[in-house]
Order: sequence, then C-alpha cells, then structure tokens
Amino acid sequence: MDAGLFTANNVWMMVCTALVFFMHLGFSFLEIGLTRQKNTVNILFKNVFIICVGLLIYYIGGFNLMYPGFEDGDAGFLKFAGFGIAAPENGMTPEYADGGYTWWTDFLFQGMFAATAATIVSGAVAERVKLGGFMIFTIIYVGLVYPIVGSWQWGSGFLSSLAFGEAEGFYDFAGSTLVHSVGGWGALIAIYLLGARIGKFGEDGKPKAIPGHNLPLAAAGVLILWLGWFGFNGGSVLSADPALTSLVLVTTSLAAASGGVSAFLTSFFAYKNFDLTMFLNGILGGLVGITAGADQMSPNEAVIIGLIAGVVIVAGVALIDKLKLDDPVGAVAVHLICGIWGTLAVGIFGNMAGFDQFLVQLAGVGAAATFCSLSAFIILFTIKKISGLRVSEQEELEGLDIHEHGMDAYADFRMNQH
Amino acid sequence: MDAGLFTANNVWMMVCTALVFFMHLGFSFLEIGLTRQKNTVNILFKNVFIICVGLLIYYIGGFNLMYPGFEDGDAGFLKFAGFGIAAPENGMTPEYADGGYTWWTDFLFQGMFAATAATIVSGAVAERVKLGGFMIFTIIYVGLVYPIVGSWQWGSGFLSSLAFGEAEGFYDFAGSTLVHSVGGWGALIAIYLLGARIGKFGEDGKPKAIPGHNLPLAAAGVLILWLGWFGFNGGSVLSADPALTSLVLVTTSLAAASGGVSAFLTSFFAYKNFDLTMFLNGILGGLVGITAGADQMSPNEAVIIGLIAGVVIVAGVALIDKLKLDDPVGAVAVHLICGIWGTLAVGIFGNMAGFDQFLVQLAGVGAAATFCSLSAFIILFTIKKISGLRVSEQEELEGLDIHEHGMDAYADFRMNQH
Amino acid sequence: MDAGLFTANNVWMMVCTALVFFMHLGFSFLEIGLTRQKNTVNILFKNVFIICVGLLIYYIGGFNLMYPGFEDGDAGFLKFAGFGIAAPENGMTPEYADGGYTWWTDFLFQGMFAATAATIVSGAVAERVKLGGFMIFTIIYVGLVYPIVGSWQWGSGFLSSLAFGEAEGFYDFAGSTLVHSVGGWGALIAIYLLGARIGKFGEDGKPKAIPGHNLPLAAAGVLILWLGWFGFNGGSVLSADPALTSLVLVTTSLAAASGGVSAFLTSFFAYKNFDLTMFLNGILGGLVGITAGADQMSPNEAVIIGLIAGVVIVAGVALIDKLKLDDPVGAVAVHLICGIWGTLAVGIFGNMAGFDQFLVQLAGVGAAATFCSLSAFIILFTIKKISGLRVSEQEELEGLDIHEHGMDAYADFRMNQH
Repeated sequence: MDAGLFTANNVWMMVCTALVFFMHLGFSFLEIGLTRQKNTVNILFKNVFIICVGLLIYYIGGFNLMYPGFEDGDAGFLKFAGFGIAAPENGMTPEYADGGYTWWTDFLFQGMFAATAATIVSGAVAERVKLGGFMIFTIIYVGLVYPIVGSWQWGSGFLSSLAFGEAEGFYDFAGSTLVHSVGGWGALIAIYLLGARIGKFGEDGKPKAIPGHNLPLAAAGVLILWLGWFGFNGGSVLSADPALTSLVLVTTSLAAASGGVSAFLTSFFAYKNFDLTMFLNGILGGLVGITAGADQMSPNEAVIIGLIAGVVIVAGVALIDKLKLDDPVGAVAVHLICGIWGTLAVGIFGNMAGFDQFLVQLAGVGAAATFCSLSAFIILFTIKKISGLRVSEQEELEGLDIHEHGMDAYADFRMNQH
Repeated sequence: MDAGLFTANNVWMMVCTALVFFMHLGFSFLEIGLTRQKNTVNILFKNVFIICVGLLIYYIGGFNLMYPGFEDGDAGFLKFAGFGIAAPENGMTPEYADGGYTWWTDFLFQGMFAATAATIVSGAVAERVKLGGFMIFTIIYVGLVYPIVGSWQWGSGFLSSLAFGEAEGFYDFAGSTLVHSVGGWGALIAIYLLGARIGKFGEDGKPKAIPGHNLPLAAAGVLILWLGWFGFNGGSVLSADPALTSLVLVTTSLAAASGGVSAFLTSFFAYKNFDLTMFLNGILGGLVGITAGADQMSPNEAVIIGLIAGVVIVAGVALIDKLKLDDPVGAVAVHLICGIWGTLAVGIFGNMAGFDQFLVQLAGVGAAATFCSLSAFIILFTIKKISGLRVSEQEELEGLDIHEHGMDAYADFRMNQH
Repeated sequence: MDAGLFTANNVWMMVCTALVFFMHLGFSFLEIGLTRQKNTVNILFKNVFIICVGLLIYYIGGFNLMYPGFEDGDAGFLKFAGFGIAAPENGMTPEYADGGYTWWTDFLFQGMFAATAATIVSGAVAERVKLGGFMIFTIIYVGLVYPIVGSWQWGSGFLSSLAFGEAEGFYDFAGSTLVHSVGGWGALIAIYLLGARIGKFGEDGKPKAIPGHNLPLAAAGVLILWLGWFGFNGGSVLSADPALTSLVLVTTSLAAASGGVSAFLTSFFAYKNFDLTMFLNGILGGLVGITAGADQMSPNEAVIIGLIAGVVIVAGVALIDKLKLDDPVGAVAVHLICGIWGTLAVGIFGNMAGFDQFLVQLAGVGAAATFCSLSAFIILFTIKKISGLRVSEQEELEGLDIHEHGMDAYADFRMNQH
C-alpha cells in the first residue's frame, strides 16, 4: 500500500483510539451526574479502575483471545501469548494487510473498546455494589466474557459465518451486540441479583425518582460520549476509507440527534415534562441503535433508527421500573434494549435488509444473551455467595465514599441529608 | 487526486467536524457557568435541543438552501431535496472536486456549524426566555436565516462576488459575520425584546453583577471552545493543505492568547481587578475576531487583531450595560461586536487589506445586520404576540428548572436563596 | 516528500498540537479539584494566564531561543527574531525537511509544550502564592528557563551530544526531564520558599490532609491529561510514522494504566484505603515515567516502568510530607520524581539500555537539576525580597478568590467554613 495512504489510515485509527478512550470520561460523568454525591468517589474509583485494569487485562490475554489465529494461524481460544501481545515481524509496516494500520494501533483501538463492557455494568450497579466484588467481576468480564463473544464475530468465529438462506452471516458493525449488549446483559443480571437501592421503591411498590446530583456533568458525559462515538463507529471502518468513514459519521450523528428528539417528544407526550435526562438517554439510545449498521444505512434510515430508539428508551426505562429493577443511569434501556434494537435493525433497514438476515441477527442476539447472562450470573452469584455483592445498609445510607474511600467528593460544599 | 492525499484531507475534515461538534459542550459549559444554578437544567435542555434539532433541520433543508446549485446546477433557494440530502453519484469518490473530501464530510462539517448561530442566542436570553418560544425561534433561525446568509457568501451568492474598486468580493473565511454575527444580531434583538432579568438593574438604573454559579465550568467552556476553534477555523480551509491549515491554527491561537491578555489588562487598568470572566471573554473575542481572516493574516497581525478584540470586549460589555440591555454571558460583545471587528479587520490587515476591501467588508456587515436583525425581530415579535417570550415573574424568581423541567441541577447541594 | 504523506504527517502533528493544548484544561481541573473552593478562581486565572502568556512569550522569543540555528545557521542563544517567528521561505512546503510538517505546525506544537512547565509549578504553589509574583515568575520561566534547558537537547545543544563510552548522547524523547522535571524543580524550590499552607502541619508537626473540593473535576483532569498525552508523546515522534507513533501510544497508555494500578495497590497495602487521588497520581506518574523513553520501550517494559512509577508516587508523596513541604496536588512527586525516574529508565530498559547510557541520563538529570533549581531560586527569591511571594494570613484564610478577584467560584452554593 502507498505510504501516504497507509499513514493517513493509521492517523485516523489513532485519532479514533483517542476518542474511544475519551468515552471513559463521558461514562464517568454520566454515571456521577445521575447518582448521588455521597457515592461519587466510589464511582470515579470504579471507572478509573475499569480503564486501567481493563486495558492491562486485554493486553495480557484478551486481545489474543478475541482475535485467535491472528498471529500465525494456529492460535485459538485461550492461547495467551506469554505476557502480553507480540507484534509480528511485519506488523509495523505498510504490508500489515488488515485495513492498513499497524498492529499496535489495532491492539490499542480494540483495547479501548474492551473496558466499555464493564463500564456499562458499573452504571447499573452504582450506589450499592461492593467495590471488591465489582473489581473481580470487571477482571473476569473484560478478560474473558467480552473477548469470547467478540471472537464469535470479529475474530472470524461462528457468528461471522452464520449463513442462513440469503444471509451470509451475522453483522454487527461496531458492537450494538458485541459491546453494548454484552455490557447490558451483565447490567441486567447484576441489578437483578443486587436488588434496588433503599428508597427506590416505596412501600406501595411504586418507583420513586432518586435525582442525580450533577446534571451538568451528566449532560457533558453524553456530549463526550457522542464525540467518542465518532471514533467508536468511525474507527470501526478499520481504515480511513473516505466514503465509508464519512458516511458512518453522518449516520451516527443523525441517529443521535433523532434519538434525542424522539425520546424528548415521547416523554413530553407521555409525562407532560421537558425531561432532560430522557433527552440525554435518547441520544445514547440512538447512538447504540445505529452502531450495528452504521455503515449499512442511508442517512434517512439512520434517522428512522434513531427515532425508534428514542421511543424504545422511554418504554425501556418504564419497563425496568415495572419489573422492580433499579438501574440508576438507565444502562439496561440504553445499552441492552437499544443494542438489541440496533442489531435487529440491520435486518430491517439498509443494504443487508431481508428476513433471512433478520433471523440471523436474532440468532446473534440470542447467542449473546445466553452466553452473557449465564456468565454474568455465574460470576456474580459466586461472588455473592463468597463475599456478598452489596454493601451494608448503613454504608448505603451514609454513602460509599466515606465507608470505602474515607473521603468526600465535594469536601467544601454543604449537602442536603438524604 | 492521489488517494493518500484525498484520504488525509478527508481525515482532517472529519477531525475538524468532531472538534466543531465539541464546541457545543464548550458553549453549554460557558452558559451554565455564567448564570445561576436555578436555570441550569433549562440551559442544558436548550443546548442539547439546539444540537439535535439544528443538525436535523440542516439535514432536512438547510444544507441545500445554503449551497444551492451544488447538486445539479439548477437547484436554488428553497429547493429541498425531498427529505434530506442526497449524495451525487461521485460524491463519495476522490473525484469529488471541492477541496478533496467527501460529500458526507461536507454536510456534517457544515451541519455542525449551523447550530452555532442559535447557541449564541441561547446564552444571551438565558434565565428568562420561555422554552417553547425559544425552540421555535431555533428551528426558524437555523433552518432559514443562517443558511440564507451563509449562501450569500459560501453558497457563491451576491456577497462572494461583490466587486468594488480593487476588491473582488466580500471575504469571511470561517464566519466572523456569517456565523458569529448572525448569532449576535439574533442575540441583540432577543435581549431587547425580552428585557433585563429581574434584579439586573437597580432602582437607580445602575447595572448589578449577577454572578455566575460555576466558574470552573465557564473556564472549561472557553478552553473547549478554543480547542473547537482548531476545527472551526482549521477545517474552514476545506482541505488539509499543510501550509494553510497550520498557519490558520497559529493565527487562531495567537489571537485567542492576545485577546485574553488584552482584555485582562484593559479591565485591570479600568477596574483594578483581576477579572477572570473578562479574561475568558477576551479569549473568545480574539477567536471571533480572527475568524474572518485567519488564513489572510501573518502571526503578528493575528496578535494585533487579538489585542484590539480584547479592548473591544471590555468596551462592548460596558456598552451593553449602558444601553440597559442584559446579556448574561456577554454574547453580543463577543460574537456580534468582535464579529464585526474581525470582518472589518480583513480590510485593514493581511493579504487583502485595502480601502475598497474595507468598504466591501462593511457592506457585508451591513447586509447581515439588516437581514438578521429584521428576521430575528419578525420571528421573535411574532412569538411574543402569540405566546409571550418571557416566563412569569414567579418562574423567573424560583428558577426555570423547577417550573419547566421539574428537577434540580444539583439535587444534593444546599443553595443560597437569591 | 510525497504530498499525501507530508499532508498526513502534518495532520497528525496538528491533531497532537490540539491534544497538548487540551492538557491545559486537564491541569486546571486537576489543580482545582485537589484544592479548596475558596481559591478556585485564582487557580483558573493563573492557568488561563499561563496558557495565553506562555504562548505569546514563546512566540516572541522562546521558540528561537530553544531552536537556535534553525533559521539560517548562525542563530544562537538569545537571538530574538525581531518580534515573533519568521517562517523560512520554504517552511510551508513539503521540502521542509524535519519530520515532514510545516514550520507553523512546529512552532505551535512546541508552543503548547512550553507553558506546561509553569503549569506544573502553579499546582504546587496553589492556595497561597501572590498572583503578581507568580505571573512574573511564569514569564521568566517559560520565556527563558524552559527554552534554554530544551535547547540543550532538542535544539541540538550539549546534552544531545553528550557522548560517554557506548552512549551517544542524552535521550529524552518527549520531556521527562526537559518538560516535567523543569517544572518539577521550579515547583520544589517554590514550595520550599513559600512554606506550607496554614493548617497543613499540626502543632505536633504531623501533616494533615487538606481535602480537595471537587474530585470529579480532579478525575476528569487526569483523564484529559491522559488523552492529551496521546499528543504529547505521539506528536514527539515529529511525524506520523505509523510504526513509531502507534508504538508510542501503546507504551504511553500501558504505563498510565500500570502506574495507576500500582499506586492504588501500594497505597492500599500501605494505608488500607482505596485512595482515589493516589490512583489518579499513579496514572500521571506512569505517564511522566514513560515520557523519556516512550519510543524505546517494548510494551512489557512500559508496564514495568509504570509499575515502578506507581510505587515511586506513593513514596514520593510521603517523602514530601516528611520534608515538611506542602505540595497540594503532588506536583513534585509526579513531575519531578517520576520525571527523574523516567529519564533514568532509558538507561535501564529498552533499546538504549546500558550503564554508560544510564550515567549520561544521570548527567542530564543533574544538569537540569542544577540549572532549574538555581534559576527558580534566583527568580523566586528576588520576587520574595521585592514584593513578597505569599499572600497575607487573612487572605489565605478567607481565600484568594475574594481578595484578589472579588468573586466566588460557586456563588449559589453554600459552603462549609474551613
């Protein structure tokens, strides 16, 4: 490949890697913003832990687990390349075939993705999960569950070749299922096992809103995530192909915008309220929804996918409440339900639409559902039996910050007691 | 064009698109930071609305309105391409001539610009405007007023060919007039029609400072805007031309720095105070001031333009006060007055300097002034007559967050009553 | 050079420039977050001042001082190119040899680095330094001390050719010594001359923690700094060379991750606490530690350097306390001690490892130590004698925001008195 083109491709992939890294600040801000100040240090600690340990775990084994056979053809599941990745001799040169960027760029871009799955869970279990147990869960989920599911598709595994009728394989462009649903299933199982926060459901069983303590940070988180999605989806082209990358940015942004507007309008008509958090979650729903087919949709189709995602979000949040589950940041509605929606949408809209494809997409959703929810259940149930998943009632009421970290997030400010 | 070069150009334009998108977080933080906490959710809602609806409106019609004749030569004002843009057959390939990037990139870069005009107005009308009316204003201003003015120059309209003596046309590189003044005129008309916030002017008619509630976010907003201007001006080269893009980044950053220092020194000598908000607005004034001629100036000229912008800002803020107008974030001084300054500076400094050019620049300023202020007046006056522009006194005193959104921005914190 | 390749290189360098600029927001957030709210406006003011004045000073003289002989061969120390830089005739074309990017890009990338040295000092002296004196210090330190030290290595000065045995010169890839230690020595001297904040040491001489007032911003600051380091180290390749840039991003991120984990574990075992600020400083320590040799290390070596940096941070913070010095943000431990560690690590790990190289690295550390600490002492001691370095006791207790700026950072919030 031409050196100029190879270099431009690699520059784009590095920029996208940086943007995906930056999403971790977006997730942190969103999670902090939608929860109470007394658990803020704990949330920050979890998120920083996830980024650092996630990247290291992926380095030690996840990358090779997810992309078996990459190195010399005979690698496979559970082949760990000693301690860490080893670049092939020609991995650094323009001859490295796959998409035209270096082995190192490949690793880092994928590594930044990996931690995301655990971050999604982090939001759902906020304000009541024990730190130690969550750290163990993170290590296993990022180190094993995420790369195994990923390998089914991106590692040329069985999903990628799941032919059925006219469909030639499951398709998940940037991870509506492989990233977002993987996190979403973990989140769903976790909040089921954990139970709701004290005060979330009244004696009558009705859900009560527990307001987030910092909506500017929550909104900033969503805008940072949207920015990061330029890299998340834009980088998933795996080159700087001008037509494809720019189309992907257009579909991504239009789905985000229409998802937000749709959720705002839906919640306005349903609840007669200009609900900022619903608007924000609608944007995220649109982003998750377009992720599976961002390169397959026309702009108009992207708008439609976003509009539906916005409705799905509002309904999804209501459903979680109805099921007496407590998801402080709406992670299940955003990442799981819209992740499923986005995956199925590939069979409904765009270049690949068709009933056979729809069924294959459904099969992929089912495979991820089965494996992730079972894995999450086994991991979390084991932790629960051994050390407990949930902090004490006293700790929950007084806040995890003081109990687990011995510090306040905002030491100089006076707080309401609740 | 060479594939490597085309790809590099397109990568740069996509990076710039992402940076301009990120400016919306900068605007949000700045506007929040300089106003009171009781209106924070409302401001966030407006800003998120502007981004999402602005992009969709621009997609539905604004892009074609602004760049008529792009598609097949016979397009013109009010030709809407059905629902949304349609890329020409060869729009995705290296043959797409204009600047060497794809049609999709072009749309998205311009779309991220479009919402800015409404965002500027948003800051000026903060803390008292009715949400519904503002949303309608946004749709019309972004959907019609901004693209029409833009088409005069960037759509090869009459301003672009306004020859006069030695001048060969109005010049506005990245939008001192076409973006910032368009927003600024809307802001000026809006604050005139709205009136000042309760408490802004004492019984003696003297202005009182209403302190912003979160200066860290205000400062962060300005730094994010500076970062975003790398894309706003850097992308306005419409290619990654190494000499031109890098010169533009240098002039942009030097004008920002000198604008800040100049405003700080001016306000220090005028008011004997190290005024952080004046420093911040000086940076923005320098950025707006260099925007019209960022590619025409030497670094030294950029510094001079910034230094003058800093003085203009301090004087402009005082002038607005004197006129008994209430502009909580200084939007008129920053975007309108420095926008005019920057546009005129193209006739005074740099490669195009000359008296004829100065007159042409003045004509462009006048054309935008006439059209924008008239349009804004008609739109806002109509809204005022039909539904009222301003919230009730009670709502203003208690805050828009509770009344329009039913939520607090900082639920856990204890607030001062004022 | 091929136009596509040249353009891609230049795009990467401009992206990196933007990222290094963004680090200033990271530094600001970190410094604010770890100090008290009553000094927040002051800190923001200092940081904005540093960015603006630093860039202008570097423009007026620093750049030519740091890269003597760049222009026409006969330039040298203290040759100021009139007012500002002047690009060589061919500086804008692909023929500009050094790394394949334009003269303007070169200036701006280096200019964004320059202010960093003063920013590091800013954190250490927070909450008690007089604003006027600090501004004078900044001008001299950024305008003279930083470029002189930089010129020793990056300007082809004596350190770059310090041959000894098998070593062929001092090596500091992106500035563990030339940037971070330069700032760190200034910080050390400054806190020695300033003395500790009131209340930092009890009557028994034992250090007391003075908690930071906004840990979300502190954490955001660290994540923004990590993001910025993609540009700080990635851009120090001085081209977009695919193999080298992507390797540098991998080593940088792995060192950050392992530094964080190591500091967290070390402090956990030492103090039985999940200490968020130690985790954050560990990330920064890893980043500073890898900076000198980011292009020389394998990923495994990067992990080891980070792990050691994490331990060094925890020990370093304890050492500063033991010495009765007061460094509110841990700047000396992060930037000076880890900067030394990173510089020495080039002689221990990686492609250049060897005892001779280790000694040369040590010599470079010693040269910077001598020159920077002497310079900082002379500047600060002179300021102290003339106008005093430290604010009055009353001002320190009541906060610098009210006394020097006449405003509150968070006007609407109720604060604890302390």
